[in-house]
Amino acid sequence: MSDSSDVLRASIGLAVSTVIFALRDAEGDTSGPAVGTDAPATVWLPLVRRIREPQCGRWALPGGMVELDESLEGAARRNLAETTQLEPAYLEQLYAFGDVDRSPDRRLVSIVYWALVRPDEAERLTLGENVQWFPADELPELAFDHNLIVDYALWRLRTKMEYSAIAHAFLGDEFTLAELRGVYEAVLQKPLDPANFRRQMESSGAIEPTGGVVTGGRHRPPKLYRYTGDVQLVDAGPLTPRISA
Amino acid sequence: MSDSSDVLRASIGLAVSTVIFALRDAEGDTSGPAVGTDAPATVWLPLVRRIREPQCGRWALPGGMVELDESLEGAARRNLAETTQLEPAYLEQLYAFGDVDRSPDRRLVSIVYWALVRPDEAERLTLGENVQWFPADELPELAFDHNLIVDYALWRLRTKMEYSAIAHAFLGDEFTLAELRGVYEAVLQKPLDPANFRRQMESSGAIEPTGGVVTGGRHRPPKLYRYTGDVQLVDAGPLTPRISA
Repeated sequence: MSDSSDVLRASIGLAVSTVIFALRDAEGDTSGPAVGTDAPATVWLPLVRRIREPQCGRWALPGGMVELDESLEGAARRNLAETTQLEPAYLEQLYAFGDVDRSPDRRLVSIVYWALVRPDEAERLTLGENVQWFPADELPELAFDHNLIVDYALWRLRTKMEYSAIAHAFLGDEFTLAELRGVYEAVLQKPLDPANFRRQMESSGAIEPTGGVVTGGRHRPPKLYRYTGDVQLVDAGPLTPRISA
Repeated sequence: MSDSSDVLRASIGLAVSTVIFALRDAEGDTSGPAVGTDAPATVWLPLVRRIREPQCGRWALPGGMVELDESLEGAARRNLAETTQLEPAYLEQLYAFGDVDRSPDRRLVSIVYWALVRPDEAERLTLGENVQWFPADELPELAFDHNLIVDYALWRLRTKMEYSAIAHAFLGDEFTLAELRGVYEAVLQKPLDPANFRRQMESSGAIEPTGGVVTGGRHRPPKLYRYTGDVQLVDAGPLTPRISA
């Protein structure tokens, strides 16, 4: 006869984790992301140090087990709020990771979500000894297969930049061309020619001038732009009503 | 005290399902798909009739539970082979469906895979009273949330056609422009102008002439083409080694 814990161990555990991407300056200045300034921005993500076995002490993506009475996205949001206080507007399912040996003590399948957050959202993160921002391309060895998960999320971010308005998620509703270019440069990790970038964006139909300019008394204040909505930020087809946008 | 079955019922079950798309002529002629012929092709998928409760008698996507010692893709392939004998070359993870009430008797999360199969692969399907092809756009009420799943898979197929070489999965290594156009017309459900289609495909860099023509003694035999490989069929970035191509 087996007791309850044996039965549970012989079942597959279901967890959620979330990769949160934000843009910050290269030094990781906590005073806020540096999009559009002279300092080059890079992609950062918050990690949580594990305080329980297995792999106690290792940094890991925020996450936890799915409760019986909550949806997958609900579980991702709850675990994220509990560990980081983050409540991203943009949250999308990324991939289910289920290799047989990815967790040492029991079979565990993780449904991974990803989110892009604006500077004002990123500021909600309560930093501490066990919660820190890390540059996405220079991570330590993380718990479980979380390095692979972050690599995959970065690949999806860079691929998706090419055919959607995903850069918008890092910016407010209005932005200058220099700020938008800063997002592309940070994500693609290469400098872009300002004149070419302007031509490409203006001919894409994805953005339009708002008619306004940056206030503050400069001689030639930069024009403000917004996305036209012709290119969708999150379009999950029939699933769209179930995904927050 | 709870016994084993109570404990299992209080855990979340993990299942896999697979959406298999193939192109067949509008009448569903079982003699084989009609790509490139005069009969317009449409998107079809195989379904399996449930012979157990819950929802006994309803048609459903081929699938089943994930065993403790198999990967998610391994579970999808095993269940597919057991119910349909299909072994698709192209199999990709689509989405994890996990609404709390999607299965009536216990909490069940399904990791859904999707596959596109060529005519010679589709012929492996062993038809019977409980295994049949259905046109993807005219399905009966399926078990669980499987109608939603098929709608989402169709949306992904149509979206992905626009930025990848996914049409290739429905064809052999060599094909005529008429056959390739037939795939696009079937998936997008609209006729395309042959001259415009030829111009667009030839200028895309995605395909190139093989130098050969269709044999069979016609006066002006159509030229054969192949994909150049500059546009990837399946590119899942860091996960690519784990996905069959």
